[in-house]
Amino acid sequence: MGTGLKGNMTIAQSGGPSMVINQSLVGATLEAIRHKEIQGIYGALHGIQGLLDDNLIDLRKETPANLEAVAATPSSALGSVRKKPTADDCRRILDVMQRRNIRYLFYIGGNDSAETAGILSEEAHKANFDFRCFHIPKTIDNDLRENDHTPGFGSAAKFVACALMGDNLDNAALHGVKIDVIMGRNAGFLTAASALARVHENDGPHLVYLPERPFDIPRFVRDVHAVYERLGRCVVAVSEGIANADGEPIASLFLKEKDGFGNMQLSGTGALGDLLSREIKKAGKISRIRADTFGYLQRSFPSIVSQADAREARKVGVEAVKHAVSGTKDGSIAIKRKLGAGYKITYECIDLKQVARATRHMPDEFIAKSSNDVTPAFLEYARPIVGPLPKIGCLKKIRIK
Amino acid sequence: MGTGLKGNMTIAQSGGPSMVINQSLVGATLEAIRHKEIQGIYGALHGIQGLLDDNLIDLRKETPANLEAVAATPSSALGSVRKKPTADDCRRILDVMQRRNIRYLFYIGGNDSAETAGILSEEAHKANFDFRCFHIPKTIDNDLRENDHTPGFGSAAKFVACALMGDNLDNAALHGVKIDVIMGRNAGFLTAASALARVHENDGPHLVYLPERPFDIPRFVRDVHAVYERLGRCVVAVSEGIANADGEPIASLFLKEKDGFGNMQLSGTGALGDLLSREIKKAGKISRIRADTFGYLQRSFPSIVSQADAREARKVGVEAVKHAVSGTKDGSIAIKRKLGAGYKITYECIDLKQVARATRHMPDEFIAKSSNDVTPAFLEYARPIVGPLPKIGCLKKIRIK
Repeated sequence: MGTGLKGNMTIAQSGGPSMVINQSLVGATLEAIRHKEIQGIYGALHGIQGLLDDNLIDLRKETPANLEAVAATPSSALGSVRKKPTADDCRRILDVMQRRNIRYLFYIGGNDSAETAGILSEEAHKANFDFRCFHIPKTIDNDLRENDHTPGFGSAAKFVACALMGDNLDNAALHGVKIDVIMGRNAGFLTAASALARVHENDGPHLVYLPERPFDIPRFVRDVHAVYERLGRCVVAVSEGIANADGEPIASLFLKEKDGFGNMQLSGTGALGDLLSREIKKAGKISRIRADTFGYLQRSFPSIVSQADAREARKVGVEAVKHAVSGTKDGSIAIKRKLGAGYKITYECIDLKQVARATRHMPDEFIAKSSNDVTPAFLEYARPIVGPLPKIGCLKKIRIK
Repeated sequence: MGTGLKGNMTIAQSGGPSMVINQSLVGATLEAIRHKEIQGIYGALHGIQGLLDDNLIDLRKETPANLEAVAATPSSALGSVRKKPTADDCRRILDVMQRRNIRYLFYIGGNDSAETAGILSEEAHKANFDFRCFHIPKTIDNDLRENDHTPGFGSAAKFVACALMGDNLDNAALHGVKIDVIMGRNAGFLTAASALARVHENDGPHLVYLPERPFDIPRFVRDVHAVYERLGRCVVAVSEGIANADGEPIASLFLKEKDGFGNMQLSGTGALGDLLSREIKKAGKISRIRADTFGYLQRSFPSIVSQADAREARKVGVEAVKHAVSGTKDGSIAIKRKLGAGYKITYECIDLKQVARATRHMPDEFIAKSSNDVTPAFLEYARPIVGPLPKIGCLKKIRIK
């Protein structure tokens, strides 16, 4: 079928990398090859910066085998950027698109990238330049509205769950308090996934703190001591984005740097973990306290990929191209889950505005009333997205009399 | 064959957990079942603390399937401890051993554990208590003398190499300086393993700092800027144990806590990475600087196991039991590598004193003359120990004219 709009296509990646963002790139590229409307298939290096600089590569020159190897490789193969286009940027990008006859643009990223796609779509429309502009969802934070979950989340969640499985065992071997700081600026989904690590009774994480609930330091200290008194140890999963009752991020007391969208730098520093350790230490009752900040490993570690996540990341790329060539002007591909038995996913094309800017948070039914744990409903939600986890053996430990 | 010394056996685990320490536990347990000299097979919970408290479990009550599941699970299934026995502790342990007729003791751990085994062996000898005391090697730091490498190192090194593969790709997508702080108090082997992550030209880590060479902050800052000017980015692997020319750990400027053997706490805090970030930031030329401290993940993460490491960890447990029942009084099982083509390993029983206390360092031929990298000889040494790494795909990136 198709719309008859012939021209070149450009695809780009934006924001924080994920373990499966290249699945979307390769899904869209291989689908584009199947449609005669799409002539040149270009990759813009480092997101819209590549369009601004006319820094484009020819994806038709990549072999299928090479594309498949890239699909299975973490991080953004085209390079990424964190940049909101200014009015001047838009004019320059439009100029490159017209000169290059780029009629199809696919932007893989989170809510900031959807916003960028929306801005470009609007500018092209004003200039009467006929083109198709699509956002392909990606975010390990799982915070895009209108999506049941987002590509990238499942694999990052698998990393976090595996990490907590190991860390719980480590803490069981050498007792103490262990604090793990997990990514997720606004939404607690990734931190919540730590609870998937629990296999046996009394397994950690014993406490889970999400940005959706106010974080109170004295209460945190009391919670940790209560677990420690009961079990002789305590594993804590805490989101980097935890904030006090006034909404000020706890980490902001120490950190100042912001990115192009005004977001605070929360990752790539151990400051929050160390601050929380000091608070426990100050109470003077527990001597061995450790904090790890998982940092960039949780979004880039190779070989810890959720198969469902890889499959869905590929599919959103394919769907975006299908919609574009079938005449849809612009949009974002959203992942929806069918209610009922089993794990069934559908893909819908929604308006860019529905995912741009604002983010989604953990719904109340996923957060325990105590505000320091998740509910069984969350675990049920997350399990099929993350897929099977490593088997954890445990001694029966029958005492000698 | 055998010595005729009949009695019960106790096995225990000590020091930092590893991903394969339970292979040694299960190897020794399954081998012990085969020998009629060994009657009860006990596990002491939390190392010598379990002997002090008479806190023993019956390993004969575990099923073979359960033992195999435990073998494949990271961390110390019996629990661990960091404790050097006092003279009084030795008397209490000897008392438990005599009362329980424990004639065989196997202690899995690093150089501190070998020292503990040596102390117990000596005390038993003084008391004319006939028993066999063996150290089974384990340390992710790879710093035991007389060993080509140690069980635990290969899997931790695999984790570090995988992490750097992902982190290099992440840094290539979003440019900046990335500092990764890696475990290893005295020896740089684990930090050096980061260099296995390099697949393509200009892949990181671009700089590797080991505790075997004095760390000079101004020189570090110059090194990073030189790489950044050349590539527009820089990935740094740095050992937690780096020290200045006077031998003072860089981290010690910030950290005070020490363990039972007088070792400084270097892990479980992001302080060193944050300090190094600040030094780069102070120079004022680079804005995006991030630091991750890998922390406990590198020794406990499930499913990232080197097959060679798992096999060898099993074997040192088996060998220790074989030596003990064949009459050797005490000793430690050392891993030796045969020179020549291919990767061939032999196991030798050596004196406890040969591995106790002092540690091994990276030999000079493994460290680049520049003091900020490893040599090809190191990579050749490490590759078979770590085994195959994930495949990394890369776009050819042929520019559009």
